[in-house]
Amino acid sequence: MWAVCSRGDGAARPRVCRCRIPFFFFHSYTAMSPKITGELLRQLRQAMKNCKYFSEPIQAYIVPSGDAHQSEYIAPCDCRREFICGFNGSAGTAIVTEQYAAMWTDGRYFLQASQQMDNNWTLMKMGLKETPSQEDWLISVLPENSKVGVDPWIIAADQWKNMSKALASAGHSLVAVQDNLIDAVWTDRPKRPSTQLRTLGLEYTGLSWQDKITSLRAKMTERKISWFVATALDEIAWLFNLRGADIEYNPVFFAYTIVGMNTIRFFVDLKRLSDPILRDHLQLDSPSKPELSIQTFPYESVYTELQAICAALGPKDKVWICDKASCSLTQVIPKAQRTPIPYTPLCLAKAVKNASEIQGMKMAHIKDAVALCELFAWLEKEIPKGTVTEISAADKAEELRSQQKGFVGLSFPTISSVGPNGAIIHYRPLPETNRTLTMNEVYLIDSGAQYVDGTTDVTRTIHFGTPSAFEKECFTYVLKGHIAVSAAVFPNGTKGHLLDSFARAALWESGLDYLHGTGHGVGCFLNVHEGPCGISYKTFADEPLEAGMIVSDEPGYYEDGSFGIRLENVVLVVPAKPKYNYRNRGSLTFEPLTLVPIQVKMMNTEQLTQKERDWVNEYHRKCQEVVGAELERQGRKEALEWLVRETQPII
Amino acid sequence: MWAVCSRGDGAARPRVCRCRIPFFFFHSYTAMSPKITGELLRQLRQAMKNCKYFSEPIQAYIVPSGDAHQSEYIAPCDCRREFICGFNGSAGTAIVTEQYAAMWTDGRYFLQASQQMDNNWTLMKMGLKETPSQEDWLISVLPENSKVGVDPWIIAADQWKNMSKALASAGHSLVAVQDNLIDAVWTDRPKRPSTQLRTLGLEYTGLSWQDKITSLRAKMTERKISWFVATALDEIAWLFNLRGADIEYNPVFFAYTIVGMNTIRFFVDLKRLSDPILRDHLQLDSPSKPELSIQTFPYESVYTELQAICAALGPKDKVWICDKASCSLTQVIPKAQRTPIPYTPLCLAKAVKNASEIQGMKMAHIKDAVALCELFAWLEKEIPKGTVTEISAADKAEELRSQQKGFVGLSFPTISSVGPNGAIIHYRPLPETNRTLTMNEVYLIDSGAQYVDGTTDVTRTIHFGTPSAFEKECFTYVLKGHIAVSAAVFPNGTKGHLLDSFARAALWESGLDYLHGTGHGVGCFLNVHEGPCGISYKTFADEPLEAGMIVSDEPGYYEDGSFGIRLENVVLVVPAKPKYNYRNRGSLTFEPLTLVPIQVKMMNTEQLTQKERDWVNEYHRKCQEVVGAELERQGRKEALEWLVRETQPII
Repeated sequence: MWAVCSRGDGAARPRVCRCRIPFFFFHSYTAMSPKITGELLRQLRQAMKNCKYFSEPIQAYIVPSGDAHQSEYIAPCDCRREFICGFNGSAGTAIVTEQYAAMWTDGRYFLQASQQMDNNWTLMKMGLKETPSQEDWLISVLPENSKVGVDPWIIAADQWKNMSKALASAGHSLVAVQDNLIDAVWTDRPKRPSTQLRTLGLEYTGLSWQDKITSLRAKMTERKISWFVATALDEIAWLFNLRGADIEYNPVFFAYTIVGMNTIRFFVDLKRLSDPILRDHLQLDSPSKPELSIQTFPYESVYTELQAICAALGPKDKVWICDKASCSLTQVIPKAQRTPIPYTPLCLAKAVKNASEIQGMKMAHIKDAVALCELFAWLEKEIPKGTVTEISAADKAEELRSQQKGFVGLSFPTISSVGPNGAIIHYRPLPETNRTLTMNEVYLIDSGAQYVDGTTDVTRTIHFGTPSAFEKECFTYVLKGHIAVSAAVFPNGTKGHLLDSFARAALWESGLDYLHGTGHGVGCFLNVHEGPCGISYKTFADEPLEAGMIVSDEPGYYEDGSFGIRLENVVLVVPAKPKYNYRNRGSLTFEPLTLVPIQVKMMNTEQLTQKERDWVNEYHRKCQEVVGAELERQGRKEALEWLVRETQPII
Repeated sequence: MWAVCSRGDGAARPRVCRCRIPFFFFHSYTAMSPKITGELLRQLRQAMKNCKYFSEPIQAYIVPSGDAHQSEYIAPCDCRREFICGFNGSAGTAIVTEQYAAMWTDGRYFLQASQQMDNNWTLMKMGLKETPSQEDWLISVLPENSKVGVDPWIIAADQWKNMSKALASAGHSLVAVQDNLIDAVWTDRPKRPSTQLRTLGLEYTGLSWQDKITSLRAKMTERKISWFVATALDEIAWLFNLRGADIEYNPVFFAYTIVGMNTIRFFVDLKRLSDPILRDHLQLDSPSKPELSIQTFPYESVYTELQAICAALGPKDKVWICDKASCSLTQVIPKAQRTPIPYTPLCLAKAVKNASEIQGMKMAHIKDAVALCELFAWLEKEIPKGTVTEISAADKAEELRSQQKGFVGLSFPTISSVGPNGAIIHYRPLPETNRTLTMNEVYLIDSGAQYVDGTTDVTRTIHFGTPSAFEKECFTYVLKGHIAVSAAVFPNGTKGHLLDSFARAALWESGLDYLHGTGHGVGCFLNVHEGPCGISYKTFADEPLEAGMIVSDEPGYYEDGSFGIRLENVVLVVPAKPKYNYRNRGSLTFEPLTLVPIQVKMMNTEQLTQKERDWVNEYHRKCQEVVGAELERQGRKEALEWLVRETQPII
């Protein structure tokens, strides 16, 4: 899936992205009429004055996006900012004072937010010069010596630090309100999901959770760390070889884990642990070794357990916690003994896929390609009838994917867009915007699925009639960028952001560009966006690319009001063997996992270099060979014919 | 001049470079035998216990490189770290405790430092896993509750902050010792230079100092800043259109400036201000307007004057100071009123050259090319005689440059290196390493000069006989990289680091690389290295490239023990006019200012694309046209013949 960032203006300084995944991205919206919030705000302001929640009245309350795990996607029970203001985009922070209510979001959401919020709310347009920061705004509206409250579970430790410092410099203070005040006024708040947990065997994971614990402890020993606190849901799912369905599109479940050198504490809704297969998987009833015995605790008790652990720390004991973990858990650990890290050892280990995971990802991508070949063959037949819409095409894609073995669900909401809708970078078809696919407009589909063996994410841009010269020209630049990254050879130790400009060079040369990053890490039957690697012009703290990492390669071009183009493959980092080996560093390159033909009709092949043509032909040869065999096996004849036709060599 | 960084290993996090210029670079060394330091250390340790300097004994004393202006090059009186330990490389920090003496430097200097220091000193090899940081080492060797002293003028504010925090976390404290303890034991310390100041007229500067003050004040007004403290020597020289010769190769002079909305305070050795031309230039005796009246103060009184200014600050007054300014001056400003900035408005304004400066830089580069064409023609004749050495070639280059109008001096020590010496990235010829130029080895010369109208910096790599296939192959990759940067088209607002990989792609594809950045900002008759822009894989906080900025483009390849290749032009950022103009952002590209032929004999022209061949031919056409005319005018016939021969088109 594409990932879009608002490109900083010339004067902006590079900022390290605060979110776990170094990309902004979007949640789609469905409501177009504003939410009526007057009564809710009245109740919230009453709660702000109620000493039941905090020892003295607070003058402002901050409602960030996100959950206690700083997840990118969140469960309905955690959509508190949406509940209070009506705006349901992925990024936004609401702040309510005694007099005002304001909501900050970025350029992707100005229109949507203005439509979803009533006039109790002021929209704060981030990125515009005249828009104050949250800190500056608070300082300008608050009476002296104000208390600003926030739920310390929802705010990350580093964000707390910055906000707290800014407020203190103006004589105010940021205070932790333990009970969430939105929850206090949200009478019909949904329950926290507690879906069934799925165990994954060694054939998928390649490593038992016991081995993962052992290598985590080896890293702890190496850095003289006594305890590690895991709060990111995908890291916990990966560690224990478990999957859940608590958050849509993300096969994760609500849990915490604290690992010591001899103990493993697992915090989860205990009702989930009754399944004998699960108990056996976790060896809950008969641990093989004492140090691999998992102690289970209720999800909510992580705070008190961590307190107890910290109370017993020796003076030299150090505790690892991600600097993006919640303020609440972070501050339990005494500062002198806290070792914050930008990426946890689990995040780093998870990013480098082992042989079983790579094999699973390859299988998942072949199945995914089967579904897409079928979709495109079907679209070719159906579009002339004028009955296919963006929504029905997306539905068909899901239906075809769901026929594949091991299908679990989509990995993100399908972006299915025709003509001008393709140029809206955060588009998702809605009944009121739904366009019909025709022979006259470019069709862009960005979609992916969760299979039990892997996660997919692929974008293709297709014309079912005759593309215009400009559409072909732009498509060709995007293709050149895609190939430049995919075929790049680079030294071991290179960070992904150093490859970003390769994707843009051809567009830049013609004065064009795209305003989003080029690639993100992809999980293996896990989140479709994951750290710590990526390919972006943003100089976030990405980790160097390593053989076994999996990222997307997705340059694009968007002509406002007319069309959008994006070409996305998921690619595996693999060793390369160039002629020389400077300082024995070794070299890397990418192997495409996505095996879906790239439409030749959209290419100006004469604009391609011989090397680029060779790349296209070799890619299509592989698509035909690998996906063709699977289509054959599954007896999907029409799709096979389509594949063979679409993968003929270009000259 | 090239600029080399030790490339981080895979696990290293990106670090924002601390130095003003985002490159490590080197000073050459001449002493090969260690300095005897036993007695000096005894005296220093006595001073550490002497309450004359600090109210109680200090247990450790830090001696950083650098001067009170955080200059890259320093004057002899400021070479305190060299004085105490003997090591005279450009980067290194010495720390002396009651028992130990240790010196930290990076990989470029391990050999040199080990040769220059006696066994009172422990060499701390930075970048190796087993080497402790200064903080960790101090914490491991100090007795409880120790005081660690440092001269607050020499340490930058941001470095003080980090060190202070680390020491405090272990119960120690960092203390400012106002008198420098090295100076206290350095009996024959040279005087601070106070060379004659040179005024630059509008024909060179394009802007009067009065206009520069006015636009500085406009920026201050825009950001609601009451005072600006300038501490960087090149910024002060630029602001007042003055040049000095206090530091070798850098036409700067020791001074400070504090600018308020109605006052200008100038701190400089007052003896320098007796020259009537200078007094007139600065309007010292008859200022045109009261707010443009310069008040002069002795250099040393900046501290007390800034104190006086700060004592009179209103509660809303803010003071701008660079975050790399000295801790001493920074801490005079109350924290609440201090606005630290990574780059000052002067640094930013200075980087964007105006029409007069660009014209001057062009003229300087033409003269410089004349000298180099003569040098290469001369070398061609003389080398077969076997009498030319690295040193004599460098001397000849200087002699030829000095014949050009407006020559002031070299802009850095010439790197003149033959064969294996060319692969030593921080090489400078010394009598004991001096090699003879022959027909059998590659010759690399990186040199430049200060002219009154501009600063030059150019590297050419030449073979006077028949290069090997491998030498030609590598040269061709480097040339491809050079062209890829020079011919790149990119959107306005692009930061230089996004272009770095373009310079490496051809090398990477063959498994090769070079371990230094690709380009640095270049001053106009000022420092050859200047911020805030550059082209590097390091993600330092560089500012976006803008039309009028001037940077170097200098990829290379170094084969240890065999040869070195580097191709460096100084290039001007200019607007580009590609086919499209996405979002009206506009595009930029580079125009080479350096006009010295690139040796065709070293190229595998068949490895070049048509576009690359066209670039070479157009570049050589321009060299012939522009430099040829000047050689003609100066009657330098042999060099003209050489130029014409070396600029024949390639096919």
